[in-house]
Amino acid sequence: MRTQVAIIGAGPAGMLLAHLLAAENIEAIVLERRDRHYVEGRVRAGVLEQVTVDLMRRLKLSSRLDQDGLVHSGTNLSLDGQIIHIDLANLTGGSTVTVYGQQEVMRDLFDAAEPRGVHVIWDADETMLHDVDSERPFLTWKKNGTEHRLDCDFVAGCDGFHGPSRMAIPNNVLKTFERVYPFGWLGILADVPPAGHELIYANHERGFALASMRSATRSRYYIQCSLNDRVEDWPDERFWDEACLRLGRDVATKVTRGPSFEKSIAPLRSFVSEPMRWGRLFLAGDAAHIVPPTGAKGLNLAASDVIMLSQALREFYRDHSSAGIDSYSERALSRVWKAERFSWWFTSITHRFPNMDGFDRRIQMAELDYIRGSITAQRSLAENYVGLPLETI
Amino acid sequence: MRTQVAIIGAGPAGMLLAHLLAAENIEAIVLERRDRHYVEGRVRAGVLEQVTVDLMRRLKLSSRLDQDGLVHSGTNLSLDGQIIHIDLANLTGGSTVTVYGQQEVMRDLFDAAEPRGVHVIWDADETMLHDVDSERPFLTWKKNGTEHRLDCDFVAGCDGFHGPSRMAIPNNVLKTFERVYPFGWLGILADVPPAGHELIYANHERGFALASMRSATRSRYYIQCSLNDRVEDWPDERFWDEACLRLGRDVATKVTRGPSFEKSIAPLRSFVSEPMRWGRLFLAGDAAHIVPPTGAKGLNLAASDVIMLSQALREFYRDHSSAGIDSYSERALSRVWKAERFSWWFTSITHRFPNMDGFDRRIQMAELDYIRGSITAQRSLAENYVGLPLETI
Repeated sequence: MRTQVAIIGAGPAGMLLAHLLAAENIEAIVLERRDRHYVEGRVRAGVLEQVTVDLMRRLKLSSRLDQDGLVHSGTNLSLDGQIIHIDLANLTGGSTVTVYGQQEVMRDLFDAAEPRGVHVIWDADETMLHDVDSERPFLTWKKNGTEHRLDCDFVAGCDGFHGPSRMAIPNNVLKTFERVYPFGWLGILADVPPAGHELIYANHERGFALASMRSATRSRYYIQCSLNDRVEDWPDERFWDEACLRLGRDVATKVTRGPSFEKSIAPLRSFVSEPMRWGRLFLAGDAAHIVPPTGAKGLNLAASDVIMLSQALREFYRDHSSAGIDSYSERALSRVWKAERFSWWFTSITHRFPNMDGFDRRIQMAELDYIRGSITAQRSLAENYVGLPLETI
Repeated sequence: MRTQVAIIGAGPAGMLLAHLLAAENIEAIVLERRDRHYVEGRVRAGVLEQVTVDLMRRLKLSSRLDQDGLVHSGTNLSLDGQIIHIDLANLTGGSTVTVYGQQEVMRDLFDAAEPRGVHVIWDADETMLHDVDSERPFLTWKKNGTEHRLDCDFVAGCDGFHGPSRMAIPNNVLKTFERVYPFGWLGILADVPPAGHELIYANHERGFALASMRSATRSRYYIQCSLNDRVEDWPDERFWDEACLRLGRDVATKVTRGPSFEKSIAPLRSFVSEPMRWGRLFLAGDAAHIVPPTGAKGLNLAASDVIMLSQALREFYRDHSSAGIDSYSERALSRVWKAERFSWWFTSITHRFPNMDGFDRRIQMAELDYIRGSITAQRSLAENYVGLPLETI
C-alpha cells in the first residue's frame, strides 16, 4: 500500500488533518489502534476555541455544531464565592468559545470520513515507524495477526502521549519539558441543567472547582482532588456538597443535583516535546504536548497544529516548496508554548497547591483582584481563552 | 510635647506624609534616628511613577524634578539580546515614569521642611511606641542621653523594615507574608552616559541585567548575582563584561564603561505585614511592605500609602469622620498587594532561578514571547509599571 501522508491516530488531530488533506486532494490514510466506538466514546474536552469552530466550518462539518453548540460570549472566575465576569466577546472584538463535546466532534469527523474518501484503518496493532529520516518512510502494523505495510511521503504522528511517533525521534534530538501538578481533577457528568449558561472557574480555600456543561440538559462539574483519592471516596452527595461549597452560596443555589453517570479522576500535567518535526515525521496534538485541562486548550491546540501542518503539506505538494515543512516545528511550538503558559498560569491562579504558603495565597488573591479591577487584565485572559490568533491561515 | 500626628522616620514615606499634613494644617512632628546627611545619602530607587510625580507637583515640590527628571515614555525588555519595546505612554493613555533619584527627592523634601513648618527631630535614639491601642498614644526617645516624650492623637510608622512601629502590633494580630529570592542585585553607579534613553530589563541565560540611569551623565547598572558573592569579587572590568554580555550585543555597543563610584549587593525580598493599622498606629512604606527592586515600586508604594493616610487623617480632623481611618489598612493593602504581585511577577519572568528546570525556562520565554506579540500583554505590563490608579484621590 502507498499513500502521500500516513496519519497515525484517529483522534481529533489525526481526523482533522485527514479531512484537511482530503480537501486539498492530498492522499492520506489514518491508522488507529482502537475501533471507532472506543475513540468516539472517550469523554474529553468540551470547549472549542474560535479557531477550532472556524476550522469545522471551513471543512463544512459544522451543521450539528452550529445547531447544538452552546456559544459562550463570556466566562467567569470566582474567588471565595465572589464572581468576576469576563466578557469574552466584548473584550476580544467578538470572539467566543463554543461548548461542544469532543465526542460530538469525533462523531462529525467519523460520519463524514467515508463520503469524503477519508480512509481509516481500525484496530491497527503494534504500529511501527520506519526510515522517517529518509525520503521513503513507511509504517508497519498488525491487524488480526497479519502484518501490513504502508509506504508514504510523510508520517503525521497524531497518536497521543503514549503513541509510538514521538518515540521514533532519537533521544539525542528530542527534548522534553514537563510539569506534573500535585493534584487531580475529579469530574462528573450528570443529566441535569447547568448552574448557569456560562462556565465558572472557582478558586476556593478548599481547592478549585469548575461548573461546566455539555448541553442545556447535561452538566459537567469538576473539583480539585488529591491524587490519592479514588472515585469510590466520592459518592455523588459528597461530590455535590463539596462542589457547591467551593462554587459559593450564590452559585450553589442554582446547582441542580442529580445522579452522575460518569465519574473519573484525571491527573494534571504540562508536557512539551521539541522538535515537532523529525525528517519526514511530524507530531501534532497530544503526541507532542499535553496541557492541564484548565482553559480547555488540548483539543484546540491539536486543531491549530494540524491547520499549520496541512498548510505546510499543501505548500509541498502544490507549490513544490519545503519552506512550510521546514518551519512547521518552530511555528507550531510558538503557539503551543503560549497555550502552555496560559494553561499553567490559569491552573496556578485557581488551584490550591499543597506547598502554598501565605504569600503564594495572597499573590493568587492579588492576581484575581487585579483581574477584577483591570479591563486590560481581563482582555489578556480573554484573548488567551478564546485562542491567540494563528499568525497566518 | 504634644502634636496631632507623630511620624516615626524621615524617609520618603515620613517626609511626604509630613508635607501632606502640613498642607492640610494638621500638626505633625517627625522623629528620625539618623541625621539628614545620612538619610539623604542613601542610594535607593530612581524611577518615579506618575502618582509620585503628581504628588510632588501637588505639594509644589517639583521644580527640580520638573527640570532635572528624565521623563520616560517607554521601557524595554530583552530576551537573550532581543529587545521588546514597551511604549508606556501610548499604552496607558499618556502616563510615563520619571527617573529622579530618591536622594534628590529627599533633598527636595528636606529643603522645604523648615520653611513650611515641617518639624524633624534628628538623632532620636531608642524610639518607643506607647498606648497606641488607646486614644492617648505617645512616643518616647533619647537624644544626647536625655529622655523625651511626645503625646499625640496618632502615630504614623514610617520607620522602614527594621523600625519599632510594626513590632508594636501584637503578635496575635500581625500577619506577615514573605518571599526571599535566591539571588541578589549587584549594582554600580558610574559617571558615564547611559546606554540608551530608556531602561532595559534583560533576561539572559546567565541571569538578569538592568541598564538604568540617574541622569544624562550618570548610569546605574545592575546584574543578578549569587548571594554568596562579595563586592570584591566584581572588579569594574568583570562587572562591565558581564553586564554587556547579558544586555546583548546591540546594547553592549552603546554601553560607555567607566569607573564605578558606588558598588553594592542588595538582597531581594517580598514582604507584607497585615494589618497596616492598629488602634492609633498606621504603618506606611517599608515598615509595612518590601518589594524586590524589579519595577521600582518601593518608593512609589510609600507615596501611595501616605496619600491614602493623609486623606484618612484629613477626614478625621476636618470632617470628624473615622471612616477613612477605619478603611486605611484595607485600601492601602489592596494597592500594595497588586504592586507586590507585579514586582514578584516581573522578577519571576526576568531572573534566572537556581532551581529552574527546562519547563520553567520555556515558560519564561513564552511569557516574553507573548508580551512581544500582544498589545494587551504590553498594556498590562505598562499599566502596572506606571502605577495602577489610586481608587480616589
